[in-house]
Amino acid sequence: MVIQAYGVHQMGEALKPFEYDPGPLREEEVEINVEYCGICHSDLSMLNNEWGISQYPLVPGHEVVGKIGAVGEKVKTLSLGQTVGLGWFSRSCLTCEWCVGGDQNLCLTAEGTIVGRYGGFANKVRAHHGWVVPLPSGLNPQTAGPLFCGGITVFNPIIECGVQPTDRVGVIGIGGLGHMAIQFLHAWGCDVTAFSGSQNKEQEARNLGANHFINSRDSHALKSVENSFDFIISTVNADLNWNGYILALRPKGRLHFVGVTPNPISTQVFPLIVGQKSISASPFGSPRNVMKMLEFAARHHIEPMIETYPLENVNEALEKLRQGTPRYRLVLTV
Amino acid sequence: MVIQAYGVHQMGEALKPFEYDPGPLREEEVEINVEYCGICHSDLSMLNNEWGISQYPLVPGHEVVGKIGAVGEKVKTLSLGQTVGLGWFSRSCLTCEWCVGGDQNLCLTAEGTIVGRYGGFANKVRAHHGWVVPLPSGLNPQTAGPLFCGGITVFNPIIECGVQPTDRVGVIGIGGLGHMAIQFLHAWGCDVTAFSGSQNKEQEARNLGANHFINSRDSHALKSVENSFDFIISTVNADLNWNGYILALRPKGRLHFVGVTPNPISTQVFPLIVGQKSISASPFGSPRNVMKMLEFAARHHIEPMIETYPLENVNEALEKLRQGTPRYRLVLTV
Repeated sequence: MVIQAYGVHQMGEALKPFEYDPGPLREEEVEINVEYCGICHSDLSMLNNEWGISQYPLVPGHEVVGKIGAVGEKVKTLSLGQTVGLGWFSRSCLTCEWCVGGDQNLCLTAEGTIVGRYGGFANKVRAHHGWVVPLPSGLNPQTAGPLFCGGITVFNPIIECGVQPTDRVGVIGIGGLGHMAIQFLHAWGCDVTAFSGSQNKEQEARNLGANHFINSRDSHALKSVENSFDFIISTVNADLNWNGYILALRPKGRLHFVGVTPNPISTQVFPLIVGQKSISASPFGSPRNVMKMLEFAARHHIEPMIETYPLENVNEALEKLRQGTPRYRLVLTV
Repeated sequence: MVIQAYGVHQMGEALKPFEYDPGPLREEEVEINVEYCGICHSDLSMLNNEWGISQYPLVPGHEVVGKIGAVGEKVKTLSLGQTVGLGWFSRSCLTCEWCVGGDQNLCLTAEGTIVGRYGGFANKVRAHHGWVVPLPSGLNPQTAGPLFCGGITVFNPIIECGVQPTDRVGVIGIGGLGHMAIQFLHAWGCDVTAFSGSQNKEQEARNLGANHFINSRDSHALKSVENSFDFIISTVNADLNWNGYILALRPKGRLHFVGVTPNPISTQVFPLIVGQKSISASPFGSPRNVMKMLEFAARHHIEPMIETYPLENVNEALEKLRQGTPRYRLVLTV
C-alpha cells in the first residue's frame, strides 16, 4: 500500500508529489482518508526547520479532516466511515502523569503529526486512536480542519486559564488564530476587544463578535484602556509593546501568549506585583479540550473563515500564507 | 495629644525623634499602642523614595504589633487592650469591586501605612479598623511583626496561586522573606527546595523545613533540576538567570515574583508555550489572607527569626538592614 502525499526532501524546496509505504497498520492506530487539510503557520515553520526539530523528507499537514478508512485491531471507540479530525499530535505515551491526567498535550514524549513522520498533505494519514477526534454533528467538515490546530490553540487557554463569561478580554491580532479567538470568546459570553494594526479589519472583527476595536498602532488608544482587561490573548508572531498591554490588564489580569514572538518578552516586575498580574503561554490542547471545543463550536455555529485550494496547488497556497494575506485560514481539498 | 515617632524630614537623613499631633480619632479608626515594629526592606525603599511615592516628613514602620489603646465610635469588632497587628495598608475605599470582593489589597486607592501618613516607628499609630487584625492565641507578639508585611507577602501567593500540598516548590533567596516562605511551604505539605547563593545557609534552610538545597551560583545544579517544580517563588531583589528557572519548572509550572528585580525580566515565549507555564507576581495580601496566615502560623508554630533593637537605636538597625546581614528580620521594641 502506498500513500500519496506532497512533501519536500530538504529545507527550502517546493513541495512535490511524494509517495511512501506506511507499512502494516498498528493495532492502536486508525487510518484516515483525508478529505480536507488546513495549512497552519507551523507547517511553514517546520518546512523551514525554524524550531530545529524538522526531519526530512517532510510532509506537512496537521489540520486533517476525513473519514476513517481502516482501524487497528485494538481500536474500540472509532469505526470505519466515521468523520474525524487530527491535529498537531498523533501519539503520546499514555502512561506519564500528564497522559493519565488528561493533559496528553503536555506529555514530554508526545509525537507531532509532522515531526519525524508524515502528515496530512496526503490522501491518507495514520495516528493513534487517542488523538483522533470525531466531528460532532452540525460541524461542517469542509471548514473544520483549522479548528484542529489553530482553533484549539486559542480555545485551550480559555479553559485552562479559567476565563469567565463575565470577563473583559482582548485578542491581539485578527488573523488565522485571532479570528477564531474572537468567535470563541464572544460565544463564551465575554466583552471582547479586538486589537489589530489593520484598521480595515474593524468591521470584520465586529462581525465575528468583537464588541470593541482598538488600532494597536495607536499608542494613545492602548493607554486609554489601562486597567481594563481580565485576559488578553496574543496571537501574533511580532514584538509589541508588552508593557503597555500589561498596564491594560486589570488587577489579577493575565497576558497570555499563543504566538511566538521573534524576541524575548521583557517586562518590569513592579507592575506585575502591584496588580497581581500574570504572563503565561500555552500550546495545542488535550484531546478532552479538543472535544469540548468541537461541541462548543457546533452549538454556537463557530466556523473558521477559509479559502480552499486543491492539494495539487499546495505551493500556491503556501505562498499566500507566506505573504500573510489569507482571510483567514487556508484549507486544501484532497 | 502628641505621638512620639522616629522619622526624617527629607531623603537621606538619619532618623530623629519626630512628634506629631494626629488630631481627633476618626470614627472608623483605632489607635494602636505600638509594642513591636518590624523593619522591612520597603521602609528603606520609602526612605530613599525609590518608588517615587514618598512624602516627607516620613515615619517608616508597617509591621506593627501592639495593643489597642483607643477605638473610634463606629468600630464594633475590635476592643481596648486587644493585641493586634497592622501591615502595609491602613485604609481602602471599601466600595470598589476589589474591596467588596475581599481583595482590598488590590483597591486602586488603598492607603499605605507609610505613604502620605505616619507609620509605626512610634509609640502609637492609627489605622482603619478593617486593616487591623487581631493576633490569634499562640502567636508570640514579640516575633509576629514581620508576619504583617514580609510574612503575608510570601503567604499570599500560596493561597492566590493555588499551591497544593502535593506540589514541588522552590524558594529563591533565604532572607527576610525566604526564611518565612520555607516555613510556610513546609507546613503546607510541599516538597521544598531552597535556592541560595550562600552555601553556608544550607543547614539553616533545612532546619526551617527545606527538603533540598541548591546553590544558585552553580549553573550545573540549576540545570540538573530542569522540569522539576510546580511553583517557584523569588524573594530576591536581584537579576538572576530567569530562563534557567523557567526551564526548572514542570509543565503548568509558575515562576512567581515577590521581590522587585533591578532590571526587567526577559524571557523567550517558546518555553512558556511548550510547558504551559506562567510568570506572575503579587503584592501584600488582603485582610482575609492575613487572618488565614496568622491562624496557620499559630497552628504550625511558624515564627520569623528576628533580632531586636530598641526604637532609639533604629538607625543602627537600618544600617544592618542596608548591609543585608540580618538573620533574618529586625524588630524594634517600643
